[in-house]
Amino acid sequence: MSLEEGAGKPLAHYAAWRRAGDFIFLSGIIPVNPQSGTIVRGFKDIPVEVRQLVGETGEFSTDARQGPILAQSWYVLESIRHTVQQAGGQMSDVIKLVQYFRNLDHFPCYSRVRKLFYDGQPPVSTVVQVSEMLPSAEVLIEVEATAWLPLPP
Amino acid sequence: MSLEEGAGKPLAHYAAWRRAGDFIFLSGIIPVNPQSGTIVRGFKDIPVEVRQLVGETGEFSTDARQGPILAQSWYVLESIRHTVQQAGGQMSDVIKLVQYFRNLDHFPCYSRVRKLFYDGQPPVSTVVQVSEMLPSAEVLIEVEATAWLPLPP
Amino acid sequence: MSLEEGAGKPLAHYAAWRRAGDFIFLSGIIPVNPQSGTIVRGFKDIPVEVRQLVGETGEFSTDARQGPILAQSWYVLESIRHTVQQAGGQMSDVIKLVQYFRNLDHFPCYSRVRKLFYDGQPPVSTVVQVSEMLPSAEVLIEVEATAWLPLPP
Amino acid sequence: MSLEEGAGKPLAHYAAWRRAGDFIFLSGIIPVNPQSGTIVRGFKDIPVEVRQLVGETGEFSTDARQGPILAQSWYVLESIRHTVQQAGGQMSDVIKLVQYFRNLDHFPCYSRVRKLFYDGQPPVSTVVQVSEMLPSAEVLIEVEATAWLPLPP
Amino acid sequence: MSLEEGAGKPLAHYAAWRRAGDFIFLSGIIPVNPQSGTIVRGFKDIPVEVRQLVGETGEFSTDARQGPILAQSWYVLESIRHTVQQAGGQMSDVIKLVQYFRNLDHFPCYSRVRKLFYDGQPPVSTVVQVSEMLPSAEVLIEVEATAWLPLPP
Amino acid sequence: MSLEEGAGKPLAHYAAWRRAGDFIFLSGIIPVNPQSGTIVRGFKDIPVEVRQLVGETGEFSTDARQGPILAQSWYVLESIRHTVQQAGGQMSDVIKLVQYFRNLDHFPCYSRVRKLFYDGQPPVSTVVQVSEMLPSAEVLIEVEATAWLPLPP
Repeated sequence: MSLEEGAGKPLAHYAAWRRAGDFIFLSGIIPVNPQSGTIVRGFKDIPVEVRQLVGETGEFSTDARQGPILAQSWYVLESIRHTVQQAGGQMSDVIKLVQYFRNLDHFPCYSRVRKLFYDGQPPVSTVVQVSEMLPSAEVLIEVEATAWLPLPP
Repeated sequence: MSLEEGAGKPLAHYAAWRRAGDFIFLSGIIPVNPQSGTIVRGFKDIPVEVRQLVGETGEFSTDARQGPILAQSWYVLESIRHTVQQAGGQMSDVIKLVQYFRNLDHFPCYSRVRKLFYDGQPPVSTVVQVSEMLPSAEVLIEVEATAWLPLPP
Repeated sequence: MSLEEGAGKPLAHYAAWRRAGDFIFLSGIIPVNPQSGTIVRGFKDIPVEVRQLVGETGEFSTDARQGPILAQSWYVLESIRHTVQQAGGQMSDVIKLVQYFRNLDHFPCYSRVRKLFYDGQPPVSTVVQVSEMLPSAEVLIEVEATAWLPLPP
Repeated sequence: MSLEEGAGKPLAHYAAWRRAGDFIFLSGIIPVNPQSGTIVRGFKDIPVEVRQLVGETGEFSTDARQGPILAQSWYVLESIRHTVQQAGGQMSDVIKLVQYFRNLDHFPCYSRVRKLFYDGQPPVSTVVQVSEMLPSAEVLIEVEATAWLPLPP
Repeated sequence: MSLEEGAGKPLAHYAAWRRAGDFIFLSGIIPVNPQSGTIVRGFKDIPVEVRQLVGETGEFSTDARQGPILAQSWYVLESIRHTVQQAGGQMSDVIKLVQYFRNLDHFPCYSRVRKLFYDGQPPVSTVVQVSEMLPSAEVLIEVEATAWLPLPP
Repeated sequence: MSLEEGAGKPLAHYAAWRRAGDFIFLSGIIPVNPQSGTIVRGFKDIPVEVRQLVGETGEFSTDARQGPILAQSWYVLESIRHTVQQAGGQMSDVIKLVQYFRNLDHFPCYSRVRKLFYDGQPPVSTVVQVSEMLPSAEVLIEVEATAWLPLPP
């Protein structure tokens, strides 16, 4: 699985994003390729060229342990960027993130990846640990984004 | 319990809805009749005329199993529609839903009911499984809705 | 710990608040002093003058039991008020609260404290129980607030 | 707590190390200061000058989450180095490590710290997750080292 | 996966084996192919010609149940033999084994496989059940071996 | 059961001890009589003359509570002494102990018994709590010993 066109497309009867006035609301995004229905499970499921950037070390045990959350973090945030671009904006327009984790021990890994997507002013952020997300317990993170993208007057 | 006046009224010291600019924000709605304080437990707690529509089959085991989530899903979404109407809008103005489940195995049933409420463009949607909701563990679903209902200029 | 300057300041690479049009979005606020990194654990961690107001009884068993949630509730809501004031508004401008609990048995205590902060029209409200919050299991509550604070024309 | 003299001294009726022929056997070392009896709980319990080296980020949530294992990893390995020095050797003489974790999710953090102690040939290594170590559940790691330090002929 | 070159190679920053005087110390070996990063999950992951030898029966339920531990036992012991051969010795030079299991119900299967590797004098042996091993809960066994292989005078 | 000949004999296809150069390696020893296959369960399973020495008090509740670990501790250490004697040495030649407990609350009792076996220089020591040992959950302790017993030149 690489960064495909499908990233960010809705998996069921819901919209990937909706504009309401100057706001773009996104559905909660999970690390699942909507076309293949495959869950991102590790570095092999994200493009080769970003693996080191998000934290691949080359050591088997470390990568086996951290690969799932690092790869899912990248995939979800990249899907958000992709979706906001479809709406005509960019990552810096995303001003709010609600982040659901299955295990908050994963937060430091996610936090490291998120910094790659925000070099300027960071968004407001809410973080909680929930018991499960769709479609299965292999999903470690879901992120709901809100962007502010004023219409030209 | 049928579709009462009370549906959508706040159960404590909070507002059922608030307008802020062109947006209507709703409180998280649970399947509880605010006047009687009764939790919706199955088909017998929703109006006769909608039971088949939301999925009553007449087979005892199936209805005992799926009745609670189907009836709660209908009740909660109907309460949202009712609340948005009080604010001067309709279901299609609800552009965002955050849905909390106690058990994501219930998602397919909920999803089937939600389609009855949206024939046009669906809302953006976030779905997570949490460990409990108010007032008790019998509550299987809580839905927080946001509507966009521009004021007439 | 008393009501410090630091209350409401972001604990990581995220913003305490962001304005988007007429709205102020706040990050989820937890009962942690961002300067000392200390979690509010009971009445001793909030100012003397508010302890009775939020429910200190002087009975050891009762205070040991309810102190943590009462003190955390006050600290979090006070941090929200403080943050909204930094954005130029006040508590009554906060029109929406999403409240995450580790244990919904704590809801009545929280609800009692929240009334101290709202004498007029209450906000819309969503309440769920999640399995954990940052930074550790000692955090009993996290509150995400949204304010509506129209810019002067 | 900083790098004290006491690091690596036995906490009960056992030897910190014993020579047997050309080998130095060390007792399993835990992140506890043997003089104060204090468990290393985070960055504040290790010397200021090594905190960044072992991974302190300055972000509260990340440091609160990873601080305990990073600080304990450093303290335990530093105690091993200190103990081997008392026996007349150095870290590169330690040719075998058995590492007990309370949670193998901590392995990547430990692995990063361990590399700071080995720039040349690494030791052989065994890693397992056990249910608890002495003196309490706050201890996240215990490391048993064996050194080879031939006596001068 | 068959008996590859890679068997016994270190998965992270550690040595597969180290000589110290007349001893060869091995790292704890897990049933993972270090080149592909694949965990041995059953008979299909070991060479066809050894499957019956280690206990494949051809009965589906039995093989599904015992296949994982039988195949992992063979893979780990074969990796130990391979590693000792790289150091210039053979299986009978391995005089000590420490064996970590995830479930001691697996011991009889492992014990049967181990006899295939020792026809003469058996090694000393320690057996305990731990809660997890690297890289994940699918690993059922880890074995740490020590060999005595005196250098020619 | 009393101090039998069989104590320390292997229960399966492994050696009770092996000499390798100047070292004697022992298998992990559990509190089981290898001839009868009986697990030591309390004071009645160790010789009358040592019961008071290891801590029998005569008070029913105390002895019922501490009897199992005190008797098992004595039996295991006595088996180690017996085994080292068979190899030509004595307890003071045992320079390293790895001790596995099912419950670290038992450590103080074990520690008291161990002092009876070491009046001079104590061994190096590693202590962890594991989830189970052979042959069943009634086994509270397993000890792996290493002795240094140089061959006469």
